[in-house]
Amino acid sequence: ASSEALTQVLIPVAALVGIGFALLQWLLFSRVKVSSHDSSNGYKVKLIEADEEEEGIDNIEVSIKCAEIQHAISLGATFFLFTEYKYLGIFMGVFGVIIFLFLGSVKGFSTKSEPCIYNQENTCKPALANAVFSTIAFLLGALTSVLSGFLGMKIATYANARTTLEARKGVGKAFIIAFRSGAVMGFLLAANGLLVLYVSIYLFKLYYGDDWEGLYESITSSGLGGSSIALFGRVGGGIYTKAADVGADLVGKVIADNVGDNVGHIAGMGSDLFGSYAESSCAALFVASISSFGINHDFTAMSYPLIISSMGIVLCLITTVFATDMFEIKNVREIEPSLKRQLLISTILMTAGIAMVSFFAWPSEFTLFDFGAMKEVKNYCSPVQDVADSCRIGAATNVIFGLALGYKYVIIPIFAISISIYVSFSLAAMYGIAVAAIGMLTTISTGLAIDAYGPISDNAGGIAEMAGMSHKIRERTDALDAAGNTTAAIGKGFAIGSAALVSLALFGAYVSRAGIKSVDVLTPKVFIGLIVGAMLPYWFSAMTMKSVGSAALKMVEEVCRQFNSIPGLMEGTAKPEYANCVKISTDASLREMIPPGALVMLTPLIVGTFLGVETLAGVLAGSLVSGVQVAISASNTGGAWDNAKKYIEAGGSEHAKSLGPKGSDCHKAAVIGDTIGDPLKDTSGPSLNILIKLMAVESLVFAPFFAAHGGLLFKFI
Amino acid sequence: ASSEALTQVLIPVAALVGIGFALLQWLLFSRVKVSSHDSSNGYKVKLIEADEEEEGIDNIEVSIKCAEIQHAISLGATFFLFTEYKYLGIFMGVFGVIIFLFLGSVKGFSTKSEPCIYNQENTCKPALANAVFSTIAFLLGALTSVLSGFLGMKIATYANARTTLEARKGVGKAFIIAFRSGAVMGFLLAANGLLVLYVSIYLFKLYYGDDWEGLYESITSSGLGGSSIALFGRVGGGIYTKAADVGADLVGKVIADNVGDNVGHIAGMGSDLFGSYAESSCAALFVASISSFGINHDFTAMSYPLIISSMGIVLCLITTVFATDMFEIKNVREIEPSLKRQLLISTILMTAGIAMVSFFAWPSEFTLFDFGAMKEVKNYCSPVQDVADSCRIGAATNVIFGLALGYKYVIIPIFAISISIYVSFSLAAMYGIAVAAIGMLTTISTGLAIDAYGPISDNAGGIAEMAGMSHKIRERTDALDAAGNTTAAIGKGFAIGSAALVSLALFGAYVSRAGIKSVDVLTPKVFIGLIVGAMLPYWFSAMTMKSVGSAALKMVEEVCRQFNSIPGLMEGTAKPEYANCVKISTDASLREMIPPGALVMLTPLIVGTFLGVETLAGVLAGSLVSGVQVAISASNTGGAWDNAKKYIEAGGSEHAKSLGPKGSDCHKAAVIGDTIGDPLKDTSGPSLNILIKLMAVESLVFAPFFAAHGGLLFKFI
Repeated sequence: ASSEALTQVLIPVAALVGIGFALLQWLLFSRVKVSSHDSSNGYKVKLIEADEEEEGIDNIEVSIKCAEIQHAISLGATFFLFTEYKYLGIFMGVFGVIIFLFLGSVKGFSTKSEPCIYNQENTCKPALANAVFSTIAFLLGALTSVLSGFLGMKIATYANARTTLEARKGVGKAFIIAFRSGAVMGFLLAANGLLVLYVSIYLFKLYYGDDWEGLYESITSSGLGGSSIALFGRVGGGIYTKAADVGADLVGKVIADNVGDNVGHIAGMGSDLFGSYAESSCAALFVASISSFGINHDFTAMSYPLIISSMGIVLCLITTVFATDMFEIKNVREIEPSLKRQLLISTILMTAGIAMVSFFAWPSEFTLFDFGAMKEVKNYCSPVQDVADSCRIGAATNVIFGLALGYKYVIIPIFAISISIYVSFSLAAMYGIAVAAIGMLTTISTGLAIDAYGPISDNAGGIAEMAGMSHKIRERTDALDAAGNTTAAIGKGFAIGSAALVSLALFGAYVSRAGIKSVDVLTPKVFIGLIVGAMLPYWFSAMTMKSVGSAALKMVEEVCRQFNSIPGLMEGTAKPEYANCVKISTDASLREMIPPGALVMLTPLIVGTFLGVETLAGVLAGSLVSGVQVAISASNTGGAWDNAKKYIEAGGSEHAKSLGPKGSDCHKAAVIGDTIGDPLKDTSGPSLNILIKLMAVESLVFAPFFAAHGGLLFKFI
Repeated sequence: ASSEALTQVLIPVAALVGIGFALLQWLLFSRVKVSSHDSSNGYKVKLIEADEEEEGIDNIEVSIKCAEIQHAISLGATFFLFTEYKYLGIFMGVFGVIIFLFLGSVKGFSTKSEPCIYNQENTCKPALANAVFSTIAFLLGALTSVLSGFLGMKIATYANARTTLEARKGVGKAFIIAFRSGAVMGFLLAANGLLVLYVSIYLFKLYYGDDWEGLYESITSSGLGGSSIALFGRVGGGIYTKAADVGADLVGKVIADNVGDNVGHIAGMGSDLFGSYAESSCAALFVASISSFGINHDFTAMSYPLIISSMGIVLCLITTVFATDMFEIKNVREIEPSLKRQLLISTILMTAGIAMVSFFAWPSEFTLFDFGAMKEVKNYCSPVQDVADSCRIGAATNVIFGLALGYKYVIIPIFAISISIYVSFSLAAMYGIAVAAIGMLTTISTGLAIDAYGPISDNAGGIAEMAGMSHKIRERTDALDAAGNTTAAIGKGFAIGSAALVSLALFGAYVSRAGIKSVDVLTPKVFIGLIVGAMLPYWFSAMTMKSVGSAALKMVEEVCRQFNSIPGLMEGTAKPEYANCVKISTDASLREMIPPGALVMLTPLIVGTFLGVETLAGVLAGSLVSGVQVAISASNTGGAWDNAKKYIEAGGSEHAKSLGPKGSDCHKAAVIGDTIGDPLKDTSGPSLNILIKLMAVESLVFAPFFAAHGGLLFKFI
């Protein structure tokens, strides 16, 4: 009981500490002022106060442009998100009703309490209550996900122009701003996610009391809510950002590209983070609730996933303080090691921490090891040089080598995932797998900070270019961005690995909840599910890639139209119609996100209802094992092309110089590769993680319904 | 007994009729003479005798060149195949020993007869006998596969220049030659495969007598032999042809490109055909042998797979007579409908025929339906236009649209395969699936004829171009080739679909032979197998695509070297050093085919020996469900780019004209897409079919060993 009280205090305290730390970081970087007051004769911009000026700070024209562009980006992003959230509001309403009706119908909307399924001695709340609370949890999860995305966007658009302005003073200063703003986002969202989950459990418990089966079953829906918003955020934002990006690569920078970074990378990532977090926690909680911890009502042991997440926030906080206040970055080459050091330190701290928590939180007859420390080491250098080299012969060989490299990068992660699965399953069955997934996600505050800092730097570079700042500023922000690319690739690897583990844990939970005895591949019901499930990532990618292509086409046409019809635009004397570009990306991405979203959301419902729980189990396994491969290869192929292009552009070695400079045939081939990689690495790849998790969590939520009323087709045959 | 005698006569007679028909066709097209006698003052070429001359037949220079080029192609192809077969000879020797040792060790090389496994009343031959006969069957299968590939190549190189020469007289005449030579190959190989299998069974029966379990178990190895040669043929030939093709696309036609068509498409296809044929028959025979037909010794029912194959030869023969002698092709537009009509007619005849045979061959208490008639309908027109259209914006959008299209084309075949699997399994379990696979392959004589005719026409076009014939001749052969592309795509669809079914049937046979109770996805041993298996097609594709890229690079360097160092080559006054190009392709492809070949051949051995039969079952299921997707999308993506390029080049409509002409930016973008597609559609795609089948048949052959001694790693942990 004393440990229970401690747990009940520790978790919310850790969450609040995280939020407080985020606010502090925000306070620190908001001291850089970007303000533009429209007075009668133009703008008055107050720049960085109380700091030495180093380059071009006296150029007031440039600063006014910065402020203007930031404003335009922020407006564009806000406009897009509000439009997107209108659609998502409708989706949440409709899907909430579906959840209520499907789950309510399990026992014919009866309000009678029944004996529990796993602990027959106990009485559990009626199925109708689960339907109501599942709907509430779904809406809560969805709203938190929306909020996470929106806050992330606000922070990023607040930080981008500040990074540009600081870049004039040197790369170290710019790094601090970009990294601080990333940290604000990381800690705010991680802490917020933890808090929401904890408070929901606390409040739901007021009704459920001792019925933990029902309690944690309905909490699971918050994962579904978070993840479904993340899917739309990733797909919609991904199409938006890539449409704008492809357009920009082809015809020069447009503001929509910068808006895209904020709504695609940042807001999508924010929603996605909450989704992953909620799902992995819910998977572990649900599995625990139907195991001995749940049945024995050991609250501290039950809360183990939340405790390690709390500890993750605190330990990442310590790591961040280290990074920003102890070491000062003076040189471009220090950035990447510094980021990697942070990941390493937080991982080491977490490994020790998890071992400790496991020792205290679990009953004495359990000994748990840390299975979460999967490392994925990628050495981009030599293969990227191969890819860059192949540009000599032309775009086609570049593409062939890039595809081959992406395929090859599937090998090691898959072996790592397999070993993790085998070890964690052997130690603690499906619970072990869920905990391994959480283990991979505990350093997420640091991970997200590093992830977010990339697009912020990218945006800062875009602002510098559009504001007509010197080439040097652009080089500095590019250096920040490039350093972030490798770490972001590691982050993506973690995201995919944890998605695989989470989906497997959710799949296991689904199977036990749906009352399936075994998922035997050699029964035709399971096998057809398996092969169709393995097909879904392709169908989904076909939709999203086609969407990016179509949206980019529209964007290019609009940009060409403006160049032809607005006099003085080519010479830079007239302003382009930013709003039109933003609108085109917005409309295209919102329209195009519906079919892939529908594919993911409807597949479990249709398969479960018409083909039954066994086929759905096959579909989940198939989409899991195939989706992981497509996601890893798409991310790595895209990354390899991107880095090959950057390698040639940077011209950092004799070899690279022999391939360049910008505008050479070889560079043109590299640009083609990079453009092809954009939809792969930023639209299809990251969404596929969500696809596999979301289908699993949706199946778990609807499992009681499918078990009761599913498989209509086979019943009629 | 009377039905048994009838069966024993009918099968070899059908095979001999097929071979006779092939020889007749050969006699018909060999009347076109290509002869070059080297007399003191040059060449004397006798051209088409007893026929009206229509265009340029008087140009003796051109004809001499044709003969010369044909000779060079034939020499190059023979040289490559002999070099390849030297390597394969070593492989066959080593792998034969492995089979003998592994299978012999099952019962410790004991020569004692034992009670049968499935029919305990019967006495079966010792495991050592199975080891010996399996090794013999493996070698027989491998040799037949080698022979099939070699014969195919010989026929094709005999036919190509003849097609070129006939093309001067009109497209109809050229079509007849190309199609006749395809038919020679189709019937000769299909009949030969049937005969070898039948004779082997007959001879093995002399030893095995009533022990049908052992008999059909050892016959299965001929599938392994055929398929492993097919793998190396496809991979080696595929790398060769694509290295040469990529080189040719970049720097103009080289002779190695034409050699590549013969060794890659034709010889590879020939080996592959025998492999598919042997595997699907063996799968059905093995499943039948351990079911009631085998136990009751019903020879006619057992031979059902061979009977429908025999009937396939006869019915395809009737269809071909229809095509070549009843309708004369006068116009380019008649070619494609004529080919499709043949496929349609043979499919209808076979459906009726299979229904009849099923009625007579099976015991009266069985009713079998035709589950083999899976149809895959592809309408290339509008999506290909989309892909072509996207070339306007550049190569990158072309590639994105092509990839998306390839991914999309996965959807319908997968649903079709799923339905086939469900229906055929419901009717006759794993036997149903094996028979469905054979059903898809029965029209293979016609299918192969159509498939082979494409590369022959392509080669004819190459010869015409290199011999300096008029553009009109080239257009005619291009038209032949283009018409074949669509039907070849249908053929590939059939090959992939049947590969999926065959692998599943083999997988089922493996599971029962290895004594596995159920392949439960939720056991970690199976799941890690599943996810690693799903990774293998990517690993394999990474290897083959990288190989094509490297080999192409070497080829381009050599061609550039020749242009720079041989005076007069650029102006056409000096001859290029063909032999060097051929040698580069040969060396590169033979060296590069080893790693992917080893991956496929060693995976089942390593997994089975160290991780055991359950994990191997997972690997088979994973590679099957993932490999099918990669194969379908690779083939279709490559095909879409190819057709988009051809669409622009042909300029057949206002729309196509607006994108062209050859050499425009848009056309250049299309060429990049086509070059990327080459390794996808001609190297990775077709080899993946073999990958999934080969791993399954290898697992089946080694199943007794794995069951007895496998899973070492888990035994030690």
